[in-house]
Amino acid sequence: MKDVPTGTEPVLGVYLSTTIDLKSRYVSPGETRVRLLPPEEIEDPSAVQFALAWRPAPDDFTRYPNLKLISSIAAGVDSITNCPSLPEGVAVVRVRDEAQASRMAAFAAWHVVTHHRHMTELLANAAEGRWQRAAAPEPFHDWTVGILGYGLMGRTVARGLAALGYPVIAASRRGGEGEPGIEVVGGEGSMREVARRSKVLINLLPLTEHTRDVLNADFFAQMPKGAVLVQLGRGEHLVEDDLLEALDSGQLSAASLDVFRTEPLPEGHVFWSRPDIIITPHTASDTTPQEVIRQLADAVEEVMAGRSPANLVDPHAGY
Amino acid sequence: MKDVPTGTEPVLGVYLSTTIDLKSRYVSPGETRVRLLPPEEIEDPSAVQFALAWRPAPDDFTRYPNLKLISSIAAGVDSITNCPSLPEGVAVVRVRDEAQASRMAAFAAWHVVTHHRHMTELLANAAEGRWQRAAAPEPFHDWTVGILGYGLMGRTVARGLAALGYPVIAASRRGGEGEPGIEVVGGEGSMREVARRSKVLINLLPLTEHTRDVLNADFFAQMPKGAVLVQLGRGEHLVEDDLLEALDSGQLSAASLDVFRTEPLPEGHVFWSRPDIIITPHTASDTTPQEVIRQLADAVEEVMAGRSPANLVDPHAGY
Repeated sequence: MKDVPTGTEPVLGVYLSTTIDLKSRYVSPGETRVRLLPPEEIEDPSAVQFALAWRPAPDDFTRYPNLKLISSIAAGVDSITNCPSLPEGVAVVRVRDEAQASRMAAFAAWHVVTHHRHMTELLANAAEGRWQRAAAPEPFHDWTVGILGYGLMGRTVARGLAALGYPVIAASRRGGEGEPGIEVVGGEGSMREVARRSKVLINLLPLTEHTRDVLNADFFAQMPKGAVLVQLGRGEHLVEDDLLEALDSGQLSAASLDVFRTEPLPEGHVFWSRPDIIITPHTASDTTPQEVIRQLADAVEEVMAGRSPANLVDPHAGY
Repeated sequence: MKDVPTGTEPVLGVYLSTTIDLKSRYVSPGETRVRLLPPEEIEDPSAVQFALAWRPAPDDFTRYPNLKLISSIAAGVDSITNCPSLPEGVAVVRVRDEAQASRMAAFAAWHVVTHHRHMTELLANAAEGRWQRAAAPEPFHDWTVGILGYGLMGRTVARGLAALGYPVIAASRRGGEGEPGIEVVGGEGSMREVARRSKVLINLLPLTEHTRDVLNADFFAQMPKGAVLVQLGRGEHLVEDDLLEALDSGQLSAASLDVFRTEPLPEGHVFWSRPDIIITPHTASDTTPQEVIRQLADAVEEVMAGRSPANLVDPHAGY
């Protein structure tokens, strides 16, 4: 049992989201360190010390003058750091969750193997009752997996794919050490080099002013002819028309998309009807509500004690 | 370049198979150490020193009195060791191929993730243009992956799944060391213990008199209710009716089958029509013909020099 001093009042926080009913999802009955309410149940906004936020409204933060901490519900914080009313000097934290990183790795690996081994073709054959193999798999050395975004998630994805036999190359602006089967390319030109050498490219970048629209015609042109895109970052990384052109020209042979500029992906969007695009509904990897609340309460405890919380984000860098 | 003495004649071997046209597939123009012919092109059977075999006819080996080596085209040698005309004392070798083991690992991981993350449901939703998530993934600690058969392939599969976040438990009659994330259970009761603790069970056993029909009602009854079978061994490991009963009763929730008692799986077989069975056409992992011929020539060279070849099989154990 957590050793909570008797009589300690839970710290008051507010749910802020325009797209998700946070109140119904992010509850944790056993957590006594924090208390979360939706805006309409807050009597005294000056008593609110922190917020749990996901795509808040542009002016959402203005109502709470004493905010000390804002937490995302996930690894991505772009909807918070890009919010016009984000107060200067308030600590912004994200969730950092090893199980979530593993879920991402398993999901990413599934897409790589699906494309490499023609698994959707095999499923279609089986659905028609046909015993028919697909083309023989190309050797692993022709299926280098490139990774954009080499934080906790990128490293976990890289390790999973390396363990399955794929050569892995990761771009990291800050550089970094490689590992067996994983090459890390650093510096400004790293993304282009990874593009040039990747048969399949997995995007796990955070969304910042530097990464918006980064998956565009110029980027696809760097990749080997017939390469594959696995897009697990943010919808705003991808220039949708450029992807369609790259697929139509054969520059890319296929894509897996889990995130989109508009979510849910609108009915009738051209992506839905393309056999060369695998669509999943932004489901690669969530953190469980219990884990979000636990990390949130940890961060609140640190901030209230005047210490720096874990998983602090630089709002100007955006990650 | 290989240092071959000038004037060395290639060693003569024979293709023996009732099901595959080995001559058209297993050629290797660059390999000068061996020469392979089909039976009808052999003038003097006593000159044949080795055979490349896959499902040979029962009396296939009787015609060649001077056989010194028989090689499989894959890791499995059951069709050779069970052949009535297998001469006593002839070296039997199998192919041992790390790239093949990795292909198996990637294929096995794909099936585990498909079941864990409800991927076929997501594909079906997308095919209908529906933005709809599947049930939230159960935590990794409820998705222990059990592995039967812990040789090169089993270990490679285990490492791949461990790197993706799954707890792994492997049965090994001979016992063995675990690794981070991989528990090895040894001894006679090991298969039952692995069954008891596995949410998803991957069969990679060799086919021997001890393992035939091992995936049966009694075995499924050991597994947790709702468990999943991934069958990548041999068709003869599985009692088909017992699988259907286990699925119908809910004891198992789903299965992936890559191998069958009769291959191709006959048209109209009940497996084809079951939504809870994923069928693939014995395609988990081949070795490339080049690699088969290279290993075969290495083994021939060793045997002709009076040495013991690598990857020797004990014909009585069957692996």
